Amino acid sequence: MRKLKVAAVQMRMNTEPEENIGHAEALVREAAADGARLVLLPELFAYPYFCKDKDRSLLSLAAPAKNHPALARFADLARALGVVLPISFFERAGENCFNSLAALDADGATRGIYRKAHIPEGPGYEEKFYFTPGDTPFEPVATAAGKIGALVCWDQWFPEPARLLALHGAELLLYPSAIGSEPQAPELDSSGHWRRVMQGHAAANVMPVVAANRVGEERGRDASVTFYGSSFIADHTGAIVAEADRESETIIAAEFDLDAVARARREWGVFRDRRPELYRDLAVIDAGN
Amino acid sequence: MRKLKVAAVQMRMNTEPEENIGHAEALVREAAADGARLVLLPELFAYPYFCKDKDRSLLSLAAPAKNHPALARFADLARALGVVLPISFFERAGENCFNSLAALDADGATRGIYRKAHIPEGPGYEEKFYFTPGDTPFEPVATAAGKIGALVCWDQWFPEPARLLALHGAELLLYPSAIGSEPQAPELDSSGHWRRVMQGHAAANVMPVVAANRVGEERGRDASVTFYGSSFIADHTGAIVAEADRESETIIAAEFDLDAVARARREWGVFRDRRPELYRDLAVIDAGN
Repeated sequence: MRKLKVAAVQMRMNTEPEENIGHAEALVREAAADGARLVLLPELFAYPYFCKDKDRSLLSLAAPAKNHPALARFADLARALGVVLPISFFERAGENCFNSLAALDADGATRGIYRKAHIPEGPGYEEKFYFTPGDTPFEPVATAAGKIGALVCWDQWFPEPARLLALHGAELLLYPSAIGSEPQAPELDSSGHWRRVMQGHAAANVMPVVAANRVGEERGRDASVTFYGSSFIADHTGAIVAEADRESETIIAAEFDLDAVARARREWGVFRDRRPELYRDLAVIDAGN
Repeated sequence: MRKLKVAAVQMRMNTEPEENIGHAEALVREAAADGARLVLLPELFAYPYFCKDKDRSLLSLAAPAKNHPALARFADLARALGVVLPISFFERAGENCFNSLAALDADGATRGIYRKAHIPEGPGYEEKFYFTPGDTPFEPVATAAGKIGALVCWDQWFPEPARLLALHGAELLLYPSAIGSEPQAPELDSSGHWRRVMQGHAAANVMPVVAANRVGEERGRDASVTFYGSSFIADHTGAIVAEADRESETIIAAEFDLDAVARARREWGVFRDRRPELYRDLAVIDAGN
């Protein structure tokens, strides 16, 4: 038996990185005090969601992983609390900026850095302006909380990275997020769609999924977005076992036995029955529609 | 605007193929009378679910597509009613037997034959004993009801065929099914898991999904299965818009505007943002877990 309690933090951000980071730390401490051994914070939690606008000056927010102040601070926190912390941050690497995630293990070591592969672009979510599409493979990271498959926000809409992480040995899928209203379509609420696509990844890959989103309205120059929260944890059948509302700052948590989940995954037989020789078109851009 | 009403038939089978076929025909007529232009019947509806047992003599049930009596009859029915009928049948082709699906268009023509690619094997579902894994590509078929992506039962557990059909131009995913209790694990009810994985395909590929399952207990020599119905239709966000219970013979239906769905699919941007160069391991058997 390998029991693991995981938590997702749903929080509101303001314009002061130091305040956001301090607030995030307080919430991580609270989740750890409640027994969580892995705590997932939302995407880019140190900042307001700056991609609402295309503002070149904001590129200066990015910093290299090796001297990123938030990473050093959360590494200390991970070690002090003995928790695994996947930390979303704005990474500079030479002339590129990436929307990255550092896997900080329970001993404070950085086990891996993943760079968001799927980059959205649209009113309110101008990410292609800021981020080079990631160049890192979809590889899970072995941590004190099992082999974690951590992706970032828009990646959640794609079956491919979830499946690749599962094929490479992930035991848990994590999605730090920043999603809410659509400035160009005020009537569109994608929250149900958003949940169902990730519940599908859990169900298809027979492993839990954790999604942590932000809440609150953030007003930009070009667009304003109201983040819809709705953070959730799904079990290995895709059923939601913990969930947050659309507005509260809150922590949700659930406990899994990773050994029991692994047995269920193997015994269900879907990986045995894949037909990779028929899947080649998944790896081409234009499959001839 | 391209309005399309689709229906799924949930039915009980007995041991007499002629009776099952006649019953299926009556239900198709009822669905068509109610305005459906595509009617989905369950997997292998002409027979009891014979894969409960491993019985070599049942291989004689298979027949070539070109002189399969049920296909000729349903082709006449499709033409008479002007409906599209994806017909699941047990196909013999030389020394191979396939779990196949013929796409019968509203003019009675066979537009394509798909052979189930993903074959389950386990107590109550001994399909690897009967069926050669399919050799046909995941190609949608252009019909009077749009470009349909028709798969068969266990295929529903895999994100890959759904995605490939979408990449190849499908507008609608169809899953004739035969699934229920697990003889070796009476406490296991996979119906929610089953629905969520297909809701995920709808949500990820931004297109409706139709699943038609059988109901009723079927007693075999080695195992008995109680089929759990729960047939459903999901919209392009994965939300269930029509559903059946676990026991009734019934017809469910929903109407979609395929043009509006195509706009939603394009405007959401997920196909634009795929990263095929990172997906190569999807097409290998052992990705190195």
